[in-house]
Order: sequence, then structure tokens, then C-alpha cells
Amino acid sequence: MEENGVQKKMKETIFIKMYEPSREISKKVMEKTSTDTLPLTMIPPEEQETVCIFGTGDFGRSLGLKMIQCGYSIVFGSRNPRTFSLLPSGAEVLSYSEAAQKSDIIIIAIHRDHYDLLTALTEVLRGKILVDVSNNLKMHQYPESNAEYLAQLVPGAHIVKAFNTISAWALQSGALDASRQAFICGNDSKAKQRVMDIVRALGLTPLDQGSLLAANEIENYPLQLFPMWKFPLYFSAILCVFLFVYCVIRDIIYPYVNEKKDHTFRMAVSIPNRVFPIAALTLLGVVYLPGVIAAILQLYRGTKYRRFPGWLDHWMLCRKQLGLIALGFAFLHAIYTLVIPIRYYVRWRLQNSTITQAISKKENPFSTTNAWLSDLYLSFGILGFFFFILLGITSLPSVSNVVNWREFRFVQSKLGYLTLILCTAHTLIYGGKRFLSPSSLRWYLPSAYILALIIPCTVLVIKFILILPCIDKTLTRIRQGWERNSKGSKSALNGQTDI
Amino acid sequence: MEENGVQKKMKETIFIKMYEPSREISKKVMEKTSTDTLPLTMIPPEEQETVCIFGTGDFGRSLGLKMIQCGYSIVFGSRNPRTFSLLPSGAEVLSYSEAAQKSDIIIIAIHRDHYDLLTALTEVLRGKILVDVSNNLKMHQYPESNAEYLAQLVPGAHIVKAFNTISAWALQSGALDASRQAFICGNDSKAKQRVMDIVRALGLTPLDQGSLLAANEIENYPLQLFPMWKFPLYFSAILCVFLFVYCVIRDIIYPYVNEKKDHTFRMAVSIPNRVFPIAALTLLGVVYLPGVIAAILQLYRGTKYRRFPGWLDHWMLCRKQLGLIALGFAFLHAIYTLVIPIRYYVRWRLQNSTITQAISKKENPFSTTNAWLSDLYLSFGILGFFFFILLGITSLPSVSNVVNWREFRFVQSKLGYLTLILCTAHTLIYGGKRFLSPSSLRWYLPSAYILALIIPCTVLVIKFILILPCIDKTLTRIRQGWERNSKGSKSALNGQTDI
Amino acid sequence: MEENGVQKKMKETIFIKMYEPSREISKKVMEKTSTDTLPLTMIPPEEQETVCIFGTGDFGRSLGLKMIQCGYSIVFGSRNPRTFSLLPSGAEVLSYSEAAQKSDIIIIAIHRDHYDLLTALTEVLRGKILVDVSNNLKMHQYPESNAEYLAQLVPGAHIVKAFNTISAWALQSGALDASRQAFICGNDSKAKQRVMDIVRALGLTPLDQGSLLAANEIENYPLQLFPMWKFPLYFSAILCVFLFVYCVIRDIIYPYVNEKKDHTFRMAVSIPNRVFPIAALTLLGVVYLPGVIAAILQLYRGTKYRRFPGWLDHWMLCRKQLGLIALGFAFLHAIYTLVIPIRYYVRWRLQNSTITQAISKKENPFSTTNAWLSDLYLSFGILGFFFFILLGITSLPSVSNVVNWREFRFVQSKLGYLTLILCTAHTLIYGGKRFLSPSSLRWYLPSAYILALIIPCTVLVIKFILILPCIDKTLTRIRQGWERNSKGSKSALNGQTDI
Repeated sequence: MEENGVQKKMKETIFIKMYEPSREISKKVMEKTSTDTLPLTMIPPEEQETVCIFGTGDFGRSLGLKMIQCGYSIVFGSRNPRTFSLLPSGAEVLSYSEAAQKSDIIIIAIHRDHYDLLTALTEVLRGKILVDVSNNLKMHQYPESNAEYLAQLVPGAHIVKAFNTISAWALQSGALDASRQAFICGNDSKAKQRVMDIVRALGLTPLDQGSLLAANEIENYPLQLFPMWKFPLYFSAILCVFLFVYCVIRDIIYPYVNEKKDHTFRMAVSIPNRVFPIAALTLLGVVYLPGVIAAILQLYRGTKYRRFPGWLDHWMLCRKQLGLIALGFAFLHAIYTLVIPIRYYVRWRLQNSTITQAISKKENPFSTTNAWLSDLYLSFGILGFFFFILLGITSLPSVSNVVNWREFRFVQSKLGYLTLILCTAHTLIYGGKRFLSPSSLRWYLPSAYILALIIPCTVLVIKFILILPCIDKTLTRIRQGWERNSKGSKSALNGQTDI
Repeated sequence: MEENGVQKKMKETIFIKMYEPSREISKKVMEKTSTDTLPLTMIPPEEQETVCIFGTGDFGRSLGLKMIQCGYSIVFGSRNPRTFSLLPSGAEVLSYSEAAQKSDIIIIAIHRDHYDLLTALTEVLRGKILVDVSNNLKMHQYPESNAEYLAQLVPGAHIVKAFNTISAWALQSGALDASRQAFICGNDSKAKQRVMDIVRALGLTPLDQGSLLAANEIENYPLQLFPMWKFPLYFSAILCVFLFVYCVIRDIIYPYVNEKKDHTFRMAVSIPNRVFPIAALTLLGVVYLPGVIAAILQLYRGTKYRRFPGWLDHWMLCRKQLGLIALGFAFLHAIYTLVIPIRYYVRWRLQNSTITQAISKKENPFSTTNAWLSDLYLSFGILGFFFFILLGITSLPSVSNVVNWREFRFVQSKLGYLTLILCTAHTLIYGGKRFLSPSSLRWYLPSAYILALIIPCTVLVIKFILILPCIDKTLTRIRQGWERNSKGSKSALNGQTDI
Repeated sequence: MEENGVQKKMKETIFIKMYEPSREISKKVMEKTSTDTLPLTMIPPEEQETVCIFGTGDFGRSLGLKMIQCGYSIVFGSRNPRTFSLLPSGAEVLSYSEAAQKSDIIIIAIHRDHYDLLTALTEVLRGKILVDVSNNLKMHQYPESNAEYLAQLVPGAHIVKAFNTISAWALQSGALDASRQAFICGNDSKAKQRVMDIVRALGLTPLDQGSLLAANEIENYPLQLFPMWKFPLYFSAILCVFLFVYCVIRDIIYPYVNEKKDHTFRMAVSIPNRVFPIAALTLLGVVYLPGVIAAILQLYRGTKYRRFPGWLDHWMLCRKQLGLIALGFAFLHAIYTLVIPIRYYVRWRLQNSTITQAISKKENPFSTTNAWLSDLYLSFGILGFFFFILLGITSLPSVSNVVNWREFRFVQSKLGYLTLILCTAHTLIYGGKRFLSPSSLRWYLPSAYILALIIPCTVLVIKFILILPCIDKTLTRIRQGWERNSKGSKSALNGQTDI
């Protein structure tokens, strides 16, 4: 690119201006990035890359400032080129068409609704790289992504989607914690490469997402609020509320009605510590239930090449989230259990029973059975909790990234079932002799812990049947691609050759 | 690449067919990736890239389906081109040589044993990119990797290893959790780049592993089942079994033989809570033992440029795993300790001793020494556990990636030794006055906790000697490259200039 | 690159030599990387890439050995080419200028102080890629980075900064845990690409950091020792010491002076368990305090485009670290609380009070209020701790990388304030009726927990005011770029068009 003397001169002027104390918008970044003060000494103006930004809104200005700090020369394009009171000093403001001629990379920081302004510039923008940084207010607001819309409006330009996951705030404050990842997509790989260089120069991590087809997903990304967590969280919340009401009826209303005792204080610790373990075990069962349902379906259909019903698919896709929520409940249960001896109520009861016995001068006989049950109950619970935490740790993204498929399946399947068995045993022993005894019914309602056993026991029984050798063999063959109703000879033939 | 009208037409037909409700193999991916429905509207058939897949096995079909969903046009190559009952609709099936002519990227989804079929196609495959996706059934099954074998068979083609770490299931279900990482290697960088573009388009993360030499490792990768964990796990298991038997002899068999008391219930909580802390402390000692052995060896040899014996190398390489297992045991010990007051046995004993004393009307005198010992014991244990957890957190891949070498060594060395010292002190105070007292011997067996102290105390004593200034100075010089027996002058000379 | 027969021959000789059993420096890597034995069979010598290393110090030798093991041919350049006793066998040693002619990539493993030796070689080095691997002894030791200094000395060469974050030890032992990340920067993208290929071939992860401007930061990186943690750690340490002394005065010296009681044993558990929760809650308040101060400042100034004072910036940048330290204290508090029933002192006091009551034959009346307070206190504490841990988990790099900006803000802001509210309520209920009662004053010092409430309550009150609709509306507008004193019309105009 050739530059005439005037342009050069102008840039130098801008650079000196940039370091005048008068600039108002400077913000935190300054002392952080050590490159801030380098441009003047290191990059002579003629080597600086000029980038054009269309639009002088908050994001455009923040991006421009950050780019100036990282050694770029910035030209703003604006409908009203005189409104530059708020712009980072060191930047020019020109009309759209004038600004576009200064650079072959143009960042389009204007709202999608005003993209049609750009159709008038089709000729000027021909062959240039247009960077679409826009986001929408809600998901799937428009039929096509903003970047693809832009590509249709300005067919001669190379459109690259970028920066939309980065907030103006993050640019200003140095993007400490929130994602530094800038998703990038575009059909022209050279254009993409140049934008990725800019992204990198700003201290962000570019992630190439492929062609412009990916723009839709990239634009939806910043609008998501834990989409995979929605169903699991609602489900758990409903489960908890139901269990809480159930326990309140059995443990507070029933004794109040029958014996006029005020047990309301149980709502703070006792009942949560009944609700949480039941929710945890139920959710853990719910994590493994779709797996056994899918296996039954595959056995029944005799093929794996038929789609599962939608609800089952959705269920299987949120197993990780369900499992993590279950772990949260298990964690709460563990701590609620460990504080038991500190509770005023427990201390008071223990002390009073001791006093009563001391006054009546009789000792408790020691029951080895009780000692065994109590200790086994605790031991199974602790071990189940331990393996549950291991499962949780392996679902951390950084851990699951370093294990291969075989290891991941080993942990999630083998370790998962071990956890389920231990936790179910823990609950069964907790029940002990009271299990289904009529005396524990209150208003025909069984003890709450019995509810917790329904799903896990179902899962374990079905799983036990499924791993019987005869059934397991068929299932394995189906999962390797075999089909009961296909013409066996051909499948077998290809099975020998192909993967 | 030119295309005649017939081909174009055919493709359009295929595309429409693809969206007919009749397709059988469609699976879950559909509603997940929003790009699924785009190909029809967005990529006109003439712009679609055609990729050829040799082999119609399970993996070939899954990959083909996924690629069609992501906007590729797929041609399958098969020995029996008529067997396409199970193929994703939208794909053609042709003979190998016909299919190969349709695309310059050919994915070889056939078993290695049948690669020799490809020698007949050498001419057709010349200059094409062959993607080897194969895996073996066991490690090091063949002298050379499958990809290298393929390169020898078809010398004119560019071989790229890819996709072997991705399972058919992951392709179908969207590869949610298991590694999305597709390791890639190959000698031709352009070929590699094109394959990486496909990988990215499928929503996976390509990881360039360099030249085809890496294929061997890449092929072994999916077969591994925690290879680094094997030795540490076996070692810990043996240690635990030994300690369990030891404690059973001392705590259950001995009182049964001598006093006819049934203490079997201790096997559930008491003995595990003796085994786990001993295993944890011993393993923590075992983590730091090879470091001091290596230091002694370097001091003795006077150089760091001689190889350590194989066992020491192996030991040093699995320190992280040993440490994490030790942390697991420490965690179990912590919870087993915290449940103590909830145990039936403990409550019974406490209550009964209180009742006995109340009946005999005598109070316990308060012992400040006991209070100090009990509190110090707990405090050291808690702090040791806390620093141990910090160590564990810093060994998470994502955390150890963001610390530099100096920070990592600081944490693992300084914090590690602090943990070791705190845990050893915790155990020493636990022993208290009983330490090595003859009365605690049963059948000449000392208390189990004394076994726990052997390795940690050895390590701490040697470490203390090693950090004495005179020894530390020599060691530091050796580790910076100095050698006792080398011609000092030259080393010194270069030492001034070179890094 | 053409090679004459002599060169070829020589290389073959070197290769055979390399696999002689006589080599002394071989170290651990051998059995690890399966590629080690491949070069002989796989890469014919004429295809091997030759790389030159200037300098035969420890790092140069380690890098050379590793590169030979990965299939490169290495030529060392040295001032004294005869000193090659310690070099990896398989490598040539020549003079600088001879060595430089063998390869177009030259790794400069000599100290910066001796870079001036290279000026004599300017002609030989023209157009070559010089890889600067150097580090300094302390931060900002020289005005410009070593790599930039090298670029000035040898203007005709392409300088690439790399490998400085990798230690010689990590190269030898396979870089298991410490960062495998090699930061790379340089002005010539092709040169950078070639160095990245080498980095990848050595099993490391190259991270492109942009132009040579980044060299300064890259060189400072390995010298850092948790720079962001320094202030938070000092602040916490001072806070803890102050609180410890405060508690010692109130709980040990006061009773000793007034009642001659020896309560020193409280220093082990009781007082830490008072210091840790106070420190945790105070630090949690300190995490959210700068946010409300910044909001007040923005409201007062009526713009977000003015820089915050330096101390506020710095404070805001270390909120994550402050929060994690607070979580550490909260964790310690949780465990110190859970061991309470195991403590000798607690058991003794409980037992004695029971015995006393049993002897005097009176039972405690049950107080529902106390049961409520005790259980609520525990419940708020547990829930607060639970959400605190969730906050901690989302600040793990791998977790915060997979959430978008909106999700991150939701967790850190909403969940953070929920944690703060729960923990403050926990502390308020702990105080209960004793709150500010004169009887709890000792030497005019209030109970320590009251100190813990100051900052959190302040933050919560201000935050409550800030989210009142009228104030919140103004604040939101300011944060979206609105300014109170700007010419409203133009801003509004652009606000419609631009992002």
C-alpha cells in the first residue's frame, strides 16, 4: 500500500496527540499491558496497520481505544463525522466512504438494522474485509445471522464474524476472567487469518469456527444463560419443593395435629437434610435411567440406527448437568450430616437422655448389630460421596479433555454405577428394620427415604438384567452396528473390511 | 474442479432426498446443531465440497452422516457398491476407483488388514489426501503405525492421520463430554490443513501433532486406560490390603483371642479410618522420596548428565498420580474422622462413661496438656489437609497451564514439603505419649500409625540435610550444569556465554 | 536446499553415532516418547531438517538433545568448537559462522550480554530465522526485551522469541506437569510458523502472541511468582495477624488477668476458628466493595469514560484472588467447626456439665427459640459455604472458559451477592442476643465477630440503595455509554445506529 506524504504526516500528528495528557477515555488498561507505551518507540507510523471502524457507539469506541493501545492506527467511519467528542484521541473520524478507503479491514460496529446503509458503499467495500461484531437482543431474532445478512448486502466483500463474544467492558478492563475467547468464522481463510492476527494482538484467543455458516451459533452464544442447565434445574427445584412439602406434612404437621408438638424448628436443618439426600439419590438414578431405557429400546428394535424419541435424546444430553446437581445435593447432605452433633437440639436430647438414665441408674446395653448397621451406613455413604466427587472432578472440562474416550467411559460408567450402588446401599441400611414397616406410616405416607429408593433400585435391577451374558452379547453387537433385520450376509462381509 | 450438469443435478436430488422424512439413520444431532438445516439454503450444491469415504462400516457411515449434516457432499467407496441399505441418505455409493475420482480427500475407513486393496488404486490415489482413521485392537500390534503402513502402500498420496480418537457414538450424539480433540498428523502441511478444516467444520478441535511419525502415539492413545495410574493404583491397593490385615490382627483378632471380645464392627469405620491416614501419609512420603534419592545420586555422581536408573525415572514420572491418590485417602480420612461423633459406638461409649461417672458422683479433672495435644493434633491435621487440597487443585490441568515453571515448582516443592511436615506432625502428636511405649505392642506389633511415620520422617531428615548450605550449594551448581569431573575451565568459559 | 555428497555422508555418520551405546547424556526421555527410535527407520537423513544452535550451555544442550530425539539434525555453533565433551552425541560442533551456514534456523542460546558477538555475523545471518530463547534474571532488567535488542543488532534476520518459558529440566524429563506452553512472537509470520512447527514436534504447545512487541511480556513471564496474588496475600496476612492478636487479648489475656485462668490451649483451635471466619467474611466484603465504590463514582461523575483512581483499578483487578483466599478461610472455618465435637475440651465440658446436672438431678428445659437460632445459624452457614464453593469452581480457568460473558456475570454477581447475604446472616444469627450487649465487652473491646460484620453490612446497604429502580436506571444508562454532560442529541443519534 502506498501512502502519500500528507497521510504519513497526519498519522504522526495523531500519534503525538494520542499521548497528550488531554485524552479523557483512557481507563484501566494502561498500566496493565506493557505494550501500551511501545508504539511510539517501536512501530514507526509507516509500519502501523490502519484499521477502519464503522460506527462510534460504545463498543466501537472501546475497540478502537484498545486497538490504538496495541499499536494500530484507527480511522472511524461515521454518518456524522463531526461527533467525535467521545472518541479515543489518536483516531480520525471520517465519513463512511472516506474511512473505508483508508484500510482494507473494516470493523462494522453498527446495528444490523442499519446495515442497509452499507449497500450504497458496495463499490468501495469490494474486496475488503468486513468484520461483523454485532449481537442480537434475543436468540433467533432474524431468519439468518447478521454476518450472513451482511454478506448478502455486500456480496463483493469478505465477511468475517468476530469479537461479538467480547464485551466493551472486557476490552476496557483487560478481559481478566470472562472468556478471552473470540469466536471467528468466515468463508475466506486469508481474511479470517488477518482478523485472527488482530484478535491475538489485542491479547485475546481467536477460535476458528469454520465457515460463515457458524455465524448463527456464534451470535447466539453470548445470549445463552446456561441453556443445558435449564431443564435439570427446574426438575430439581420441583423435586425439592415436593419433597420439602412431603416432609413438612410427615414431620411437622402430623406431630402437631396428633401430639400438639411444635417441631417447626426442624425446617432449618432436619428437613433439608432429608430433602437433599433424597434429591441427590433420585437425580443420580435419573442420570442412569435414560441409559437403560435406550438399551431396552435398542434391544427391542434390534438396531441402533433408529432415532430415539425426542424426550429421551434431550434427557441423555443433560445427564452431566443432572449428575452435577445431584453432587451438589450430596455435598449439602454431607455437611448437614456432619453438623448434627453441634446442633442445640441434638446436644439437648443427648444430654437429657444421659441425665435421665443416670438418675434412673441404668446403663445401655451395647448392641453389636446396631454398631455394624450404624458404621456400615456411614461407610457406604462416605465411599459413595467420595466416588461421586471423583465423577464430578472428571467432568471438569480440563480433566475430561485429557482423558480419552475409553477412560471417560470407564469413569462415567463403571465409577458411576459403583457410586449408585454405594449410595443405594447407604439408604437401604439407613432404613434398616424400619423399611416398609407399617408403624412408620403417617397418614399412609411412608418414610421419605423410601421415595429415594424407587428410581435407583429400578435402574440397578434393569442394569443387572442387561449385563447378563446373553443379553449383553446381543446389545454389544447392536452397538457395533449389527442389525437384527438386515441382510446379514452383506453386513458381515463389510464388517470384515470396514470400520 | 469442473462438474458436468448430470453430477450437479444428481447432487441436488440427493440433497432433497436427504430431507425427506424417509431417512432412517438420522439420530440426535439434528436438533442440536443449528447448521443442520442450513446446507439447503446456504451452500449451493456447486460450492459444496465433496469428500470420499472408503468403507461403509459403522464409523464410515457415522462420519459420513455427520459430514452431510455439516454441509459436505459425501461419496462412499465400497467393494460392493450395491450394499447401501444402511447408508445416510444423501450419499452416493460407488466402487473404490469411481469414488476416488470424485474428490481429492479420501477418508480410509477400512481395517488395516485390507489396506492392500488400495495398492491396486495407486494411480487413482496419486496426489490425493488419504485420511487414515483406523485404530488397532491392542497397543503396538504392528511394527509401524497404520498411517505409516498406508504411506508405504500408496507412496504417491498425502497421508493424514485423523479422527481415530473420535468414536462413532460421539459423532452421532454430538461429542458432548468426551474429548472433542482430534489429533492430527501428517507430512504434508497443506493436506493437514485441509483435514483440519473438516475437523473444525464438524465441531471438533483439531490438534496438530506434527509429522506422520506421531501416528504411532496417536493410534495408541485411544487404547490407553490411565497408563500413568496403573503402578500408583496397584501400589496403593497393596499398601491398603497390608495395612488392613495388620489392623485386623491388632484390633480384632488380638482382643478376640485375649479377651473374647467381638470387635468385628470396627471393620466398617474404625479400621478404614486407620488404614486411610496411614496410606495417605506413606504415599505422600513416597511422592517426595524419589526427589531426595535423585539429589543424593546427583551429589554422589557429581553430575546431572547421567541417567537415573529406570525404576527411579518411572517413580519420578508418577509422583503426581501418587500424590492425588494420597489426597484421596486424606479426604476419606477427614470425613471418616468427622463422622466419629455420629457413630452409635462412640455415642454409646460416651453416654455410658458419663452415666458411670454420674452414678459414682465424680467429675473429670481438666488437663490443659490434653487440651493442647488434642487441639494441636486437630489443627495440624486440618492445615495439612488444606494445603494438600491446594496442591491437588494446582495439579488440575487448567490450573497448572496458567502458572509458569517457577510458580509450579514453588507450589509443588515448598507447599508440598509444608504439607508433609504438617501431616507428619499431626501423626506424631496423635501418637503422643504412647509412641513406642511397650504397652502399645500387641503380639510384638507396634501401633499402626508408627508404620505411617517411617517414610515421611526419612524423607524429612534427608531433605533437612540436603538444604544445609554447604550441600545445597553443590547441588544447585550440579543442577545448573556444573560437573565435578569435567575440565572446569572450559565449562566455566562457556558458562559465561551460553544459556 | 541442495546438499553435496560430503554433507549427506556426514549426517549418516552422525546418525549411526547417535545410536551407539556410548552416548552419555541420554536421560529419561528415551523410553517415554515412542518417536525416539523412529528417525533411523523413518526419516532418511536427506529429509531431516537441520537446525543450528548457537551456544553449548545447559539449555542449548538440553534443547539439542531433545531435538535430535525428535528427528532433527543439530549443528552447534560455539566460540570454542572443540569443547564438545558434554554435547549430545549425534551433533556437530562448528564455529558460529560455519554452523550458521548449515541451517536457516538458528537458535540463539547465549546470554544477552554476548549478543554483540553476533554483529560480526550480520552477513551470514541475513534472511535467517534467529530464535531468541533467553530470559533475564529479574523483571525489566533492560530497557527493551532481549529479542528486540537482538533484532536491532542483526537487522537482516527474522527474530522469533520462543522456548524461554520452557526449562532445561522440562525438556529433559518430558515436561509432564509444568506448562508445556511455549509462547512465541515475531514480526515475520512465516518464520514464526516454522518455529511453531519445531515447538510442536517437540511435544509442546505453541502459543502465538503476535508481533515482537510481545517479547517483553514473554520474557517477564517466567520470572513472575504469582504477581496478582501478592497484594491479596499480604492484605490477608495482616488481617489475620491483627485478628489473632485481638482474639488473644480478649480470650486469653483478659481471662488470665481477671480470673487467672490458663486458656492458652485455645490458640490451637478456638482462636483460629474465630480468626478464619472473620477473615473470610471481611475478604468477601472486600471483593464486592470496589464494585459499589465504582458505581458511586460513575453516578457522581455521570460518565463511565473517566478513569478510576489507581488504587480502585488495582483493587478491582485482584478481586478474584481476594475471593479465593476468602474461600480458603471459609473452608478452614468449616472444618474447624466440624471437628468441634471431637475436641477433648468440648467433650470434657459437655460430659462435666451433664454429670453436674445428673448429680443435681435437674433436666434442661427445651428452648424452641434456641433450636431455631442454632439450626438457622448452621443452615445459613452451610448454604453460604456451598454457594461460595460454586463461585470458586466457576473461577477455575477451564470452567470460566466455557461460560460466556453473560453467564460469568450472572454467577459472579448474583451468586456472589447471595453468598455474601447468607454469610452475613450466618454471622448475625451467631451473635444473636449478644450483639453489642455491654456485657460482651472486655476492656471495651467488642466480640470479634462484630468486626466481621462492618464491611459486608456496608456493602449490602450501599448495594441495596444502588438497586433501587431510580438509581439503577441511571447507572445502567451510564454503563451503556450515556453521559450526563455530553450533547445528548448526538449521542442519542449515534446510539440508534452504532454498537
